[in-house]
Amino acid sequence: MRELPVKLGERTYSIFIGTSILGNTGELLRRVSGTYKVLVVSNPKVFSLYGKKLLDSLGERGFESITALMPDGEEFKNMEEAIKILNQAVDAKLERNAVIMALGGGVAGDLAGFVAAIYQRGLDFVQVPTTLLAQVDSSVGGKVAVNHPRGKNMIGAFHQPRMVVIDSSTLSTLAQRDYLSGLGEVIKYGIIYEAEFFSFIENNAEKIIKKDEGCLQELIYRSCRIKSEIVEQDEKEMGVRAILNLGHTFGHAVEKLGEYQEYRHGEAVVMGTMAAAYLALDMGLLEQSELERILELFKRLGISPGFPSYDPAQVYDGMLNDKKIANKKLRLILPRGIGDYLITDTADKDKKEVIKAIERAQKGK
Amino acid sequence: MRELPVKLGERTYSIFIGTSILGNTGELLRRVSGTYKVLVVSNPKVFSLYGKKLLDSLGERGFESITALMPDGEEFKNMEEAIKILNQAVDAKLERNAVIMALGGGVAGDLAGFVAAIYQRGLDFVQVPTTLLAQVDSSVGGKVAVNHPRGKNMIGAFHQPRMVVIDSSTLSTLAQRDYLSGLGEVIKYGIIYEAEFFSFIENNAEKIIKKDEGCLQELIYRSCRIKSEIVEQDEKEMGVRAILNLGHTFGHAVEKLGEYQEYRHGEAVVMGTMAAAYLALDMGLLEQSELERILELFKRLGISPGFPSYDPAQVYDGMLNDKKIANKKLRLILPRGIGDYLITDTADKDKKEVIKAIERAQKGK
Repeated sequence: MRELPVKLGERTYSIFIGTSILGNTGELLRRVSGTYKVLVVSNPKVFSLYGKKLLDSLGERGFESITALMPDGEEFKNMEEAIKILNQAVDAKLERNAVIMALGGGVAGDLAGFVAAIYQRGLDFVQVPTTLLAQVDSSVGGKVAVNHPRGKNMIGAFHQPRMVVIDSSTLSTLAQRDYLSGLGEVIKYGIIYEAEFFSFIENNAEKIIKKDEGCLQELIYRSCRIKSEIVEQDEKEMGVRAILNLGHTFGHAVEKLGEYQEYRHGEAVVMGTMAAAYLALDMGLLEQSELERILELFKRLGISPGFPSYDPAQVYDGMLNDKKIANKKLRLILPRGIGDYLITDTADKDKKEVIKAIERAQKGK
Repeated sequence: MRELPVKLGERTYSIFIGTSILGNTGELLRRVSGTYKVLVVSNPKVFSLYGKKLLDSLGERGFESITALMPDGEEFKNMEEAIKILNQAVDAKLERNAVIMALGGGVAGDLAGFVAAIYQRGLDFVQVPTTLLAQVDSSVGGKVAVNHPRGKNMIGAFHQPRMVVIDSSTLSTLAQRDYLSGLGEVIKYGIIYEAEFFSFIENNAEKIIKKDEGCLQELIYRSCRIKSEIVEQDEKEMGVRAILNLGHTFGHAVEKLGEYQEYRHGEAVVMGTMAAAYLALDMGLLEQSELERILELFKRLGISPGFPSYDPAQVYDGMLNDKKIANKKLRLILPRGIGDYLITDTADKDKKEVIKAIERAQKGK
């Protein structure tokens, strides 16, 4: 088991990464919480696989647990489900020193985290992510949210967890499509922040495909380390943290056009990264050979979804409704070579270039 | 105009207190915000009195304002109204650098502040409180919340404002009952924290009743200073900040039994303070003469509502449902003489004493 501290002053917490460490959750939680009550938020499928093991582990250390199950799927990450969980917390008379724990993917994590942020003005929150995407992305940095009918993650908070327990063996039960979706975010870290990590992924593609345990742990550890380095510099996303949104503004528009049903978040991010890469190529930020290296890696890992054939102007409009806009300017993160980035504010005049990049991503050339 | 800084590190902000300074709001806001958009949350009555002046002041400094009106009353401080305002924020395409401003009493402030805390994970929030209660209490310290059907302020956040503008002349249009209700919280600061301030109120009772402008400003300034001193020591209410809840646990139970219709918050706090004082007397924390001084001051200022004749056992049960309980213990704040406090955790065995104090407060002896 490896421990990665995320250093955020008084909100510092640790991420524990290991194989089959789910059963250690109670022991690890006891180090940071004196409470006796834990509200576990999960979905029926994940809970049937890992719920008993988690609850037993909590029970062994004297935690009483209450379970709130919610349906799985991005479309349930909304205020209505949050209110249902809040009602369960009130029913269970959860007190201020209680813990809210998410067992599942990003949806369970975001929803449980949002409830933890606002119930009684904030309870301790613990994440036990069981998807690759949640392990390498949402478990670091404290962003929690629900969707609004007109925009993803429009309502939320920054609420750092007290700890995160990543049991990489939970990936064995993860659907292949979800696994690949998570790899999209992993590659993002290489593109935007660390060329050496990008090479590591290239060099270990076969092991990654086979879910080699040692390799998986390293992949997760390094992804979390990169994200935590960025978040430590800019917890509230006033500046550099925005680079984590590579591909996300394009991606959110695609997710919305697909009514959050067609594409996984990670898939949409890969599509968006492709569009961002074409835009970067146009702007001279990325060499043709670098673009090809990125596309090639997506391909080798089996994640080359292609950009869907929505009307590019509609995608652009969807991007304008994204919340990451500042003073009516569309802010985009672009790769600058491999391992570096450029944050750019585009105004109306650049609309043509953005649409052209979408078209190129659609054509794949 | 006086400026009181509330020192909370990177969340430090200023409270401006003066007569007829509402028209300076735009100028003061321009010092701390570069945005061009402000969502003003208010209720129809307050907005008809002060809305134009505020909006004109904002317009002069280049702020575009959108207005979200909500019905007045504690019963509207709920999730449904919060969602309506969130929808208006989305409709207005409010961006991350926008400002949400509350114009009104504690209900508008709590609701607008909660929306500001969760819309896009947190926007700048400005308070322009127009009731005495909101000026001396909710404008300091960043507690924002909505009520849950089964408990007051169950859902909320700590979200410090960027600034607060207190125009004491708005009190001229405040209903007498609301004015007196606010005085209850003012006296609380004297009882719990500063004997000298308690004496100041005693010595200036006539001026306070007549709403003498100079005296009002001093009263508001000193109340905010005391509250800010406490909040600066303990922003998230892990310890000493709890003393501000003198009378509140009893009070919340009374408010709930009255279905938030019968009594003003400040009135319930006065009732609760009476019960807490009788309990303190029983426990030897307060002299009979000190109890009488407190009751006498309430009387002189015209706020001696008497404790309502609810079944004391029911009041006690309501207190147990309050969120300020820790590990099933009822935490009460009691006066220790005048100008000091005791934080006490009471368990089941003390139920009798608590009920006896409620009965004495009901009988007034």
